Amino acid sequence: MYAKASPFDSIRDLIAKMPRASEESRLAARARQAQLTKPRGSLGRLEDIVAFLAAWQGKPEPTIDRPLVAVFAGNHGVTAKGVSAYPASVTRAMVENFAAGGAAINQICGAYGIGLKVFDLALDIPTRDITEEPAMEPAAAAATFAYGMEAIAGGVDLLCLGEMGIGNTTVAAAIYHGLYGGAPADWVGRGAGVDDSGFLRKIAAVEAAVTRHRAHLADPLELMRRLGGREIAAIAGAILAARIERVPVILDGFVVCAAAAILHALDPTALDHCLAGHVSAEGAHRDVLRRLGKEPLLDLGLRLGEGSGAALAVAIAQAALACHKGMATFAEANVADKIVE
Amino acid sequence: MYAKASPFDSIRDLIAKMPRASEESRLAARARQAQLTKPRGSLGRLEDIVAFLAAWQGKPEPTIDRPLVAVFAGNHGVTAKGVSAYPASVTRAMVENFAAGGAAINQICGAYGIGLKVFDLALDIPTRDITEEPAMEPAAAAATFAYGMEAIAGGVDLLCLGEMGIGNTTVAAAIYHGLYGGAPADWVGRGAGVDDSGFLRKIAAVEAAVTRHRAHLADPLELMRRLGGREIAAIAGAILAARIERVPVILDGFVVCAAAAILHALDPTALDHCLAGHVSAEGAHRDVLRRLGKEPLLDLGLRLGEGSGAALAVAIAQAALACHKGMATFAEANVADKIVE
Repeated sequence: MYAKASPFDSIRDLIAKMPRASEESRLAARARQAQLTKPRGSLGRLEDIVAFLAAWQGKPEPTIDRPLVAVFAGNHGVTAKGVSAYPASVTRAMVENFAAGGAAINQICGAYGIGLKVFDLALDIPTRDITEEPAMEPAAAAATFAYGMEAIAGGVDLLCLGEMGIGNTTVAAAIYHGLYGGAPADWVGRGAGVDDSGFLRKIAAVEAAVTRHRAHLADPLELMRRLGGREIAAIAGAILAARIERVPVILDGFVVCAAAAILHALDPTALDHCLAGHVSAEGAHRDVLRRLGKEPLLDLGLRLGEGSGAALAVAIAQAALACHKGMATFAEANVADKIVE
Repeated sequence: MYAKASPFDSIRDLIAKMPRASEESRLAARARQAQLTKPRGSLGRLEDIVAFLAAWQGKPEPTIDRPLVAVFAGNHGVTAKGVSAYPASVTRAMVENFAAGGAAINQICGAYGIGLKVFDLALDIPTRDITEEPAMEPAAAAATFAYGMEAIAGGVDLLCLGEMGIGNTTVAAAIYHGLYGGAPADWVGRGAGVDDSGFLRKIAAVEAAVTRHRAHLADPLELMRRLGGREIAAIAGAILAARIERVPVILDGFVVCAAAAILHALDPTALDHCLAGHVSAEGAHRDVLRRLGKEPLLDLGLRLGEGSGAALAVAIAQAALACHKGMATFAEANVADKIVE
């Protein structure tokens, strides 16, 4: 008896073939760090970032020549349940704001010289209400995942992921509740600032969604298409495509990590090429990062999305790389390395 | 009976006349933040940074047009006690490395467009060994403090403080032990990476220094000239000068905060114009920041000095300001602000 072909088979094939880091490049970067004019290890996580970039780009002298923030925007049927402080029309309005250069992510990208691409995922056709139906058909979910894989087309050497979508912290909370259990309220935060009654509706929606689909949540990709949204599927695709192309990734906050958590549930090594840019103020994100095994680079109380926390972390990586490339060695600068007695 | 004039009188006079923040500018910045296309408060500490800059620069639209890292370098007689992993000659070698552009701080400043000035404080004449004598004569300490006040000459709108000085984590630990009590070992870290026997010598030196000067530590400025070093005095001067000129300050790590702690001990409001750029991996820094009432912006495991952690925080402030200046308002972008029912 043969298993019936699933739209997710090609995703599973790609995950089975994920490349690993170059330990040779990592060690070469570490060897250079030991020669630079500073006490050994004194640049802390800046040294770790460079070693990480070297390992995943597969070159001892990594680059951040073409960093990109890819923002995926989607709309969600669950907004009908009154889970957000903002109307669903704000998703498109913010996409237009991105195009006009007026959003926070435009300014952060401008400040640091990061490219920005916004992917509008059929905003006029929201995914179905997850409290009542699966968000997407399997083929549509697989197609959106594949679309997300295009994010890195055109040459990117550091990929930051971001999102915009009224209702998507509800969707992300449902994914976490579906993956990790606990109580629905454990995973629900205030998102864009929902009031008390909306917060209760949000918890109820997460509970209803997971209850409805509970029999079908063992497979993370099936969970994704039932509880997720288009931006979640696309971001998961982008993360996996980056892995295959050896492009290091910086994750953003609560929603982006829900997409990452799907991949992590499929294979716990699937996020080894990812850094956590920051820990969000959105309730459960700190716990999510712990489950994903990620120590955030920044903790600035952000809860905006758009890739803002990931983009801020790029500045730290740029400085880390500048130190690695530009610093003199002990020999070059004629600085004594430690006391020799 | 008249008190005899002290070389520190003019410092005390300046502290008594410190300007306060402009609450009007702070509120104006907050009012603009409420109009920008993002959920209210969702940029977290980025919004706090802008409000802080507005308040201390005294303008609703603050600037970071001329950020500067000022690095003060000094040598310390206490190095004779074998407290460091590096010979004292490394202080001058690193100053030359700064001049040649080969140190970490050069690269970080280059990455973010920050100016860099290095102040060499009589490196050929180390301060006296604090375990045996006061580090400096009162007049010399006051003169060095005044010299540090020149750091902001020439127009600076954001000042980062840094230091270089073999032996100066020993001096800083002695200052903390003198100010805050506890056990000597509470304040001593590995500095630039001293080995186990050096670490024990370092603890012994801190204990010996505080024991020798204990009868004279009630006045923070007297404590500074006995237990400090030239870079400590100069940094304290620079922080105070910045306050008088309404230049916001970003503090660096363990050693810079020892200078800040002197001012804080003189007047707990003396650091209100200062942000903590980062928390250092050098042991007691986290506790020091708590005592100074400062929440660090970054926590990246740095323990380099040079102003590196402060300079990294400038990138966060730059992005914060870019958002404040460049983002569209809800009205401009035609984005609905919250659901109106």
